[in-house]
Amino acid sequence: MNILEKEVEIGGDKMDKTFIFGHKNPDTDSICSAVIMEDLQKKLGIEAEATRLGDLNKETSYAFKFLGIDPPRKIDKVEPGSNVILVDHNEFSQSVDGIEEANIKMFVDHHRISNFRTSEPLFGFTQPVGCTGTVLYTLYQMNNIEITPKIASLMLTSIASDTLLFKSPTCTKQDIDVAKKLEKIANIDINEYGMDLLKAGTDLSDLTPEQLINVDAKDFEVNGVNFTIAQINTVDIDEVLKNQDAIEEAINNEIKEKGLDLFVFAITDILNSNSEIIALGKRTDIVEKTHKLENNRAFLEGVVSRKKQILPLINNNI
Amino acid sequence: MNILEKEVEIGGDKMDKTFIFGHKNPDTDSICSAVIMEDLQKKLGIEAEATRLGDLNKETSYAFKFLGIDPPRKIDKVEPGSNVILVDHNEFSQSVDGIEEANIKMFVDHHRISNFRTSEPLFGFTQPVGCTGTVLYTLYQMNNIEITPKIASLMLTSIASDTLLFKSPTCTKQDIDVAKKLEKIANIDINEYGMDLLKAGTDLSDLTPEQLINVDAKDFEVNGVNFTIAQINTVDIDEVLKNQDAIEEAINNEIKEKGLDLFVFAITDILNSNSEIIALGKRTDIVEKTHKLENNRAFLEGVVSRKKQILPLINNNI
Repeated sequence: MNILEKEVEIGGDKMDKTFIFGHKNPDTDSICSAVIMEDLQKKLGIEAEATRLGDLNKETSYAFKFLGIDPPRKIDKVEPGSNVILVDHNEFSQSVDGIEEANIKMFVDHHRISNFRTSEPLFGFTQPVGCTGTVLYTLYQMNNIEITPKIASLMLTSIASDTLLFKSPTCTKQDIDVAKKLEKIANIDINEYGMDLLKAGTDLSDLTPEQLINVDAKDFEVNGVNFTIAQINTVDIDEVLKNQDAIEEAINNEIKEKGLDLFVFAITDILNSNSEIIALGKRTDIVEKTHKLENNRAFLEGVVSRKKQILPLINNNI
Repeated sequence: MNILEKEVEIGGDKMDKTFIFGHKNPDTDSICSAVIMEDLQKKLGIEAEATRLGDLNKETSYAFKFLGIDPPRKIDKVEPGSNVILVDHNEFSQSVDGIEEANIKMFVDHHRISNFRTSEPLFGFTQPVGCTGTVLYTLYQMNNIEITPKIASLMLTSIASDTLLFKSPTCTKQDIDVAKKLEKIANIDINEYGMDLLKAGTDLSDLTPEQLINVDAKDFEVNGVNFTIAQINTVDIDEVLKNQDAIEEAINNEIKEKGLDLFVFAITDILNSNSEIIALGKRTDIVEKTHKLENNRAFLEGVVSRKKQILPLINNNI
């Protein structure tokens, strides 16, 4: 039973309360941003609840345990007319089931805008920075609201995770400057905490191939081509590739189930900042316009960012 | 020759310079916001030029003459890869020719988000307020940039025009509060200046029916239905309706030329805050779900806002 159904049962205020969530297959920035936004909304006098659209990955679990903060509850869908705030995403294909009929009150993001529409004007704020946590920092400043050590630690976690500790090409001077200020408020050494966080996320040992390709998978639709880009972080690409056959079987099942044209699975080496991809589906020709696949794989030198490097690679060749 | 072609000829910096524009068939807020944004960009050290995507209407002409400010130049299209900033709109159907291939660096708006997409993350800021001028006021505050009397007078003009001097249901407390602050900076009495401005916009005497229906027309596409909502302000609806036959002929020509499914022409009485609409096209059934048309017309009591009242009426019935 999801929380919305529960609220209907108790005759609650589901239409008044605002639900906040990041994207499906949530990463650390999506979950932290939802919790940060709940704090901001409450301080602005708005009843809002942070939620999540999927299970916590190991990195996120590590963060919430380390920080001693309860993670938000999981929801599967929203009822028509529900008030929602989107953080860390805007594309409907990555959002909650029922988003088309929801009342989108606000979105705060750091991704491109695509497959997003509202029927009414809304508050929207996007910045081309490394994570939504950094955008939210600006929102606190705009509203003159004090950032507590707890909120600062969540923002820092977003930055460390999404910028791969400042190594991703998505990282901006703004992320670095904000992180410095947050370190003081949270009293956390981001380099030490961040490396522990990233390493915690690379423990993939007990995941099935199905789980592995869904740790951080995002669905896209461009000019009628439906594709998924999944990504995992590791400190040893070869270790992951030992299971290539089983991973490919899981990917092919996903392609069949979702009717995908292309599935790109990126295995990213966070120490050396490279990625190996496995690409499957009837439209692998899109990938091969720039990278020859051998044994369904290609090595992408210096590539660590889905948003800034892998997605444009596909987007520009459709 | 448009200004982009001119720049190509002189081997200019067209790819570096950023072009700013509001929507096609520009209203006063679109033109003022482009000029305001040029000021903001320049003060942030970015080479940018305000432009417009159509002729000045009488209201806008009155404003720029009264304020002693040169209106921006008109452009028809942008070259692929051009840097652009969208103000007061986001829907591609209302934007410059070539927008699909442009590099959208920023958008600042107060409308719903629809038919808008970017390939890269960008700076975006939307607020559900009465005009883009009010959103830009917030941007100046965010960037700690002083608002000069000239910029204040342009923001005030945007507010007076788009909120019909605070009478439109799109007007918010924020618009009213901002206007009060701007009145002091600009040393302008908004009630006096605003009424002259709105009245200047209602002088429709020398317009042909074709010009009349294009004074402030916006194109929309919802679920495959292509429609236009045009609006004019007047102090005497009957005076405009004297030419109903000629107006209908002009609308029917427009429907044929653009392949529209529906054209709604709203004649808005700014003194009494009502509108009479003329609806033509093969999908007038959408309008008739809520308003019976007689002689192709319907009277909409208390309706003055396209965005907040007329568009939802159509949108919700498609």
